[in-house]
Amino acid sequence: MKLLSFRYEGKECFGPKVKKEEAVWDVVEIQNELKVLPSFSTKLIDGLTQGMEFVEQIRKLTEAALNSDHPEKFKHSFSEIEWLAPIPRTPKNLICIGKNYADHAKEMGSDAPVDLVVFTKSPTSIAADEQTVPVHNDLTDSYDYEGELAVVIGKGGKSIPKQLAYDHVFGYTIANDLTARDLQSKHQQYFLGKSLEGSCPMGPYLVTKDEIPQSQNLSIVTKVNDEVRQNGNTQDMIRRVDDLIVEVSKYVKLEAGDVLLTGTPAGVGKGFNPPKFLKAGDTVKVSIESIGTLVTHLS
Amino acid sequence: MKLLSFRYEGKECFGPKVKKEEAVWDVVEIQNELKVLPSFSTKLIDGLTQGMEFVEQIRKLTEAALNSDHPEKFKHSFSEIEWLAPIPRTPKNLICIGKNYADHAKEMGSDAPVDLVVFTKSPTSIAADEQTVPVHNDLTDSYDYEGELAVVIGKGGKSIPKQLAYDHVFGYTIANDLTARDLQSKHQQYFLGKSLEGSCPMGPYLVTKDEIPQSQNLSIVTKVNDEVRQNGNTQDMIRRVDDLIVEVSKYVKLEAGDVLLTGTPAGVGKGFNPPKFLKAGDTVKVSIESIGTLVTHLS
Repeated sequence: MKLLSFRYEGKECFGPKVKKEEAVWDVVEIQNELKVLPSFSTKLIDGLTQGMEFVEQIRKLTEAALNSDHPEKFKHSFSEIEWLAPIPRTPKNLICIGKNYADHAKEMGSDAPVDLVVFTKSPTSIAADEQTVPVHNDLTDSYDYEGELAVVIGKGGKSIPKQLAYDHVFGYTIANDLTARDLQSKHQQYFLGKSLEGSCPMGPYLVTKDEIPQSQNLSIVTKVNDEVRQNGNTQDMIRRVDDLIVEVSKYVKLEAGDVLLTGTPAGVGKGFNPPKFLKAGDTVKVSIESIGTLVTHLS
Repeated sequence: MKLLSFRYEGKECFGPKVKKEEAVWDVVEIQNELKVLPSFSTKLIDGLTQGMEFVEQIRKLTEAALNSDHPEKFKHSFSEIEWLAPIPRTPKNLICIGKNYADHAKEMGSDAPVDLVVFTKSPTSIAADEQTVPVHNDLTDSYDYEGELAVVIGKGGKSIPKQLAYDHVFGYTIANDLTARDLQSKHQQYFLGKSLEGSCPMGPYLVTKDEIPQSQNLSIVTKVNDEVRQNGNTQDMIRRVDDLIVEVSKYVKLEAGDVLLTGTPAGVGKGFNPPKFLKAGDTVKVSIESIGTLVTHLS
């Protein structure tokens, strides 16, 4: 199931894409009118905690709508809605893994780290698919892209054992970990250079994990103005999704709606000689197999 | 005004300390029963946005209670409540400044950084005054204390100019930035080593800024089992509170309820030879002039 978050008539909503249509099901509206389920979470974050049960509930709601007298009433065409990032606001900062692809570590001038490098991005940096975000010329002269597989946590947990790690995954989306390289290096800790306004585009969809049985074999391609810059595969991650969940949750409690950015493959702007940083007018597209393409315009 | 957050009959509440009594005013209860104000925020975070207006509202409510037929009805004795950190849950990770006292930078084996070092702590690490928190022997053999002045943001903002910086301060509290030194250094980025469960005790009170006109001249003392370890003064900060607000908000949007930890003076466990790290059974007390004493028990 491909879920999206959106704003409709001023209200934040969520729902699954209508199959073969450029539209979304308004699941809360379906439940309110048809009273299909004994109860249903009207907030996405609360639903995520329930994992695949929540996905099943959403499926029941869309079926009920399809079988109702007026299915059209429960759909909003994409032209009527404002797209949001699938998780418009994470409960804490986004949790990001540094140098998790060996070839990227190398282009950044270092070996792959022995111990996990984990930094955070402020949730105020989250942006939606197709959004135009500032290139921040006043703050940085080396704004860079990093296409990444993003893991959305469903059920929270602490010290999660490896064999249960995927129980805590709700699904996947795409993120572009936009980074001010000069700030990243001069401030030593990455937080400031990673948290500029609009620097965390995510989307377009949150794809539930049942549709992605093998998240460690997905091609990931980043293009800037249609020039391929990154061309990797999630099978080249040094630490895989389950290892990351184990390692991070050993130290930090994970919660529903937390997002884990799993690192970027080689081909970032800084890796070129001379570097190819972003400028106003650029369009960045990050495509991940089975998920889709996240488009970001720089201004 | 000294505000505290607490749980009473299972519900999260806030209110000011009753003067000269070991009790708190239940301001939401006062408003509900006496209907003093046209409107009043029942959530602390929403109130913070209003800054000193919110403080004025709370003052009116406590006056109304005092002048009512049954003031006792609106008080809870400290023995009846569960104390929480003044901000039990920040809207994003806590924003922490590294090496902001020259003597502490020196004991850590480095010069004071030219550019601001900013890292974050997960809000899941927040603990209350007098709470017993784990020493995490399974994860670290070098758990350390850092007494710090914590600034609580009221009105949010971006790119805040220096002359308006204090308009965005709601008040101050005390934090102990508990740190796993081994994790901090081996993971390069500080997030993991700074985010263990219970590693951010805060409190006991959120003191509104009108009571602390000069936050850059406060003594700050940390004791472990009554042995003085840190004995500093906020006048020795390299970057002062207003500078920190200017610099951080240049890059990251600040929001009501955000907490800024302003760095720690010399005397952390790691600074001693041999180091004096924390062990189970220790009690750490951080005292800041005009705010109070934050007590944390290690187990």
